[in-house]
Amino acid sequence: MSVRVYSARWVLPIVSQPIPQGAVAVEGDRIIWVGPAGEAPEGRRIDLGNAALMPGLVNTHAHLELTAMRGFLEDVPFREWIVRLTRSRASAMSPERRVAAARVGLAEGLLAGVTTFADVSDSGLSLGAMRGMQVRGIVYHEVFGPDPAQCDDAILALRARLAELRGETTSCVGLGVSPHAPYTVSDALFRATAALAREEGLPITVHVAEGRAEHDLVTQGSGEFGDAWRRRGITAEPRARSPIQLLADCGVLDSRALLIHAVHADERDRHLIRDSGASVAHCPASNAKLGHGIAPITEFLAQGSAVGLGSDSVASGNRMDLLDDARLAVFQQRIRLGDPAALPAAEVLRCATLGGARALGLDAQIGTLEVGKQADLAAFSLDDVADTPVYAPESALVFARGGRRAILTMVGGRELVRDGGLLADVRADQRVVREAATALSQLGDTPGTQP
Amino acid sequence: MSVRVYSARWVLPIVSQPIPQGAVAVEGDRIIWVGPAGEAPEGRRIDLGNAALMPGLVNTHAHLELTAMRGFLEDVPFREWIVRLTRSRASAMSPERRVAAARVGLAEGLLAGVTTFADVSDSGLSLGAMRGMQVRGIVYHEVFGPDPAQCDDAILALRARLAELRGETTSCVGLGVSPHAPYTVSDALFRATAALAREEGLPITVHVAEGRAEHDLVTQGSGEFGDAWRRRGITAEPRARSPIQLLADCGVLDSRALLIHAVHADERDRHLIRDSGASVAHCPASNAKLGHGIAPITEFLAQGSAVGLGSDSVASGNRMDLLDDARLAVFQQRIRLGDPAALPAAEVLRCATLGGARALGLDAQIGTLEVGKQADLAAFSLDDVADTPVYAPESALVFARGGRRAILTMVGGRELVRDGGLLADVRADQRVVREAATALSQLGDTPGTQP
Repeated sequence: MSVRVYSARWVLPIVSQPIPQGAVAVEGDRIIWVGPAGEAPEGRRIDLGNAALMPGLVNTHAHLELTAMRGFLEDVPFREWIVRLTRSRASAMSPERRVAAARVGLAEGLLAGVTTFADVSDSGLSLGAMRGMQVRGIVYHEVFGPDPAQCDDAILALRARLAELRGETTSCVGLGVSPHAPYTVSDALFRATAALAREEGLPITVHVAEGRAEHDLVTQGSGEFGDAWRRRGITAEPRARSPIQLLADCGVLDSRALLIHAVHADERDRHLIRDSGASVAHCPASNAKLGHGIAPITEFLAQGSAVGLGSDSVASGNRMDLLDDARLAVFQQRIRLGDPAALPAAEVLRCATLGGARALGLDAQIGTLEVGKQADLAAFSLDDVADTPVYAPESALVFARGGRRAILTMVGGRELVRDGGLLADVRADQRVVREAATALSQLGDTPGTQP
Repeated sequence: MSVRVYSARWVLPIVSQPIPQGAVAVEGDRIIWVGPAGEAPEGRRIDLGNAALMPGLVNTHAHLELTAMRGFLEDVPFREWIVRLTRSRASAMSPERRVAAARVGLAEGLLAGVTTFADVSDSGLSLGAMRGMQVRGIVYHEVFGPDPAQCDDAILALRARLAELRGETTSCVGLGVSPHAPYTVSDALFRATAALAREEGLPITVHVAEGRAEHDLVTQGSGEFGDAWRRRGITAEPRARSPIQLLADCGVLDSRALLIHAVHADERDRHLIRDSGASVAHCPASNAKLGHGIAPITEFLAQGSAVGLGSDSVASGNRMDLLDDARLAVFQQRIRLGDPAALPAAEVLRCATLGGARALGLDAQIGTLEVGKQADLAAFSLDDVADTPVYAPESALVFARGGRRAILTMVGGRELVRDGGLLADVRADQRVVREAATALSQLGDTPGTQP
């Protein structure tokens, strides 16, 4: 197998300081060498120029099949948003449209340097899209059911679907489970899903501690979700001191869960997370846009919990751009703490790479540039007017020019973006997504202009 | 004079709803027609395709000459930041370097669709750069002096420099004055500068109510700025109930001042702003990155005050990208108010255009697409994977794909960016800026990696 040596003005191994004029050597699907370009082993040379070469970005939370709903519902309260989104998806999103949407979302991510996608899906169809686009990731199959009487049926259906999907997994794309959220899942279903995950060795992820209405439901059985449950004849009583306590009580945290959002986590919640080894998928764009608040990730990081960054669906955050999420994460911590030194650029880049890999349990394979790890790489030019000048590459990547496109994106040694262009053709998928958007907007559920 | 008709999938006049398949006709430096493309007057047709055509963006606060200091000082407390920045600028930024830095900053802005620049400069050199790059704007000449004994000298020097610069102004680039901030300007100098502005009919802008240390100095004579004043032998006593009250007391607000930041503005402060007709330059990236907090722009807008967006210097915010600032502004209001409907996309786009024009007193000439106004235009493609699909153009422009580059930027009928490329050549300026960065980093004042 031939050796390829990628060199760049800066190489960011993440586990160590940036290497000026650095290089990474790749053989097959692995990294075999990292260091100064002048000392690189023999091989085919690819010079990326005035660029930063780093581990591929890890998106710890997405809903790829919702890509057709980017901008579909703007400026609406959270419960109304989720109800209208779910209803519209059920009416207008055929399997073909879901797959096309997932492919467009993956294309967007690859062009932004994302190589690993943690996707939450109620269909499992994104798994095929991920295989087709040759990315790395985990598809967490969702399960819903606020009524405890639905629990057994939901678990049976989930087991059946997992059995079908298991045959589609590869060494790059795996399966997980996702009991959706405390406002759509009964305690019984949380317990049963956590037991299933442990039994089958599957990772688990949950939307939790996202907003006020969820908190009121869990702690008091009140609020708009409580009212909605009662209208459906489901008992809504106080369940726990906090949503994160609820997950602890139901055995979900013990399954080394990936907690999506965790915006409202007090000191006891944070210690539950630390002591259980749970990790956090921080989605700053979604949390801000939906008015949910700022997650205490500085405290999560200080206690040693794994924190990754997530785009969430583009139905809430509108874009998949992890470097942009990194900047938002810094800005939010600095606003929350009033501290201009909170979460420096180098630290948030760790979250976007190694932190995400740890959160997904994949840090033995990806997340840093180290010999023996998978060759998942992303390179970004630093040569633009809007990059001038560059003092430190971490600060440039996080804070300077926005919407940064990768010039190279590689998964397991395979180039998927080269010279800034996506090698896969998604034009047909974009057409299908636009047709889906037309169908969605004709449902009358969107407040905006028609597409 | 020949008529040019620019058509696009969407035209956003700002004063009215978006026009699907719209067009704007330009003759000389003016807009002569706006409406559906099918009804456009005769003229040379330029079809921009699947794009949004809108008024050029108005950057209400920049320090163009600091472009060489993008990323120079990261993660340091505010007073240390401003002291080190000022010291380093004085040692390493020659006039040639300042002009090159301003040109690179202008290039960055033009590529981001900015057509009007409100620049604050302690040299006035940015005025020549603005003329050379053919943009529109105002250069506010700074004046400093916390010691009341310096006041007369400072005003004399300011008058002399304004007299020199007045000969360089044009119909597109004008002059203003800027008493820097309450922590660098005495009450006497605020009064004298406001009197000068009124006397000479010059606009005035002030950094105010930005952070805690400034507040402590003004209200109690305490804190790190108070200590620094005392070390210089300058009396630091309580001056006013709040920084904005101080400007009111010194007659600055009565000069229809443009208030930069206004992060900490309580109800009385907001009413002072409303009643005086002062306006606000909101700089969300800078306020977040430096840990200053979130300005109450929802309240400013509700009371009818003019609010524009500002990049601030790239030494604090690291980029000049007003659409990005628009998204940050929305996110910050939604976090502050816990309201997912706060500051909708259409409203923040008004801030980025008409609001900024009002804030600068230029709304009779720019800020909307209306017949008779100056042909200051910006067009952005909506055709990218990361734009797919588009429901409403306002939401797409603000929330979807980041780092959006203008495909067309026009000032007074003159194309300055065409087909996504800048017509001016700033490569030599980029080289000078990189040299300046090397010199700056050799001062030992930057904590980051060397360039």
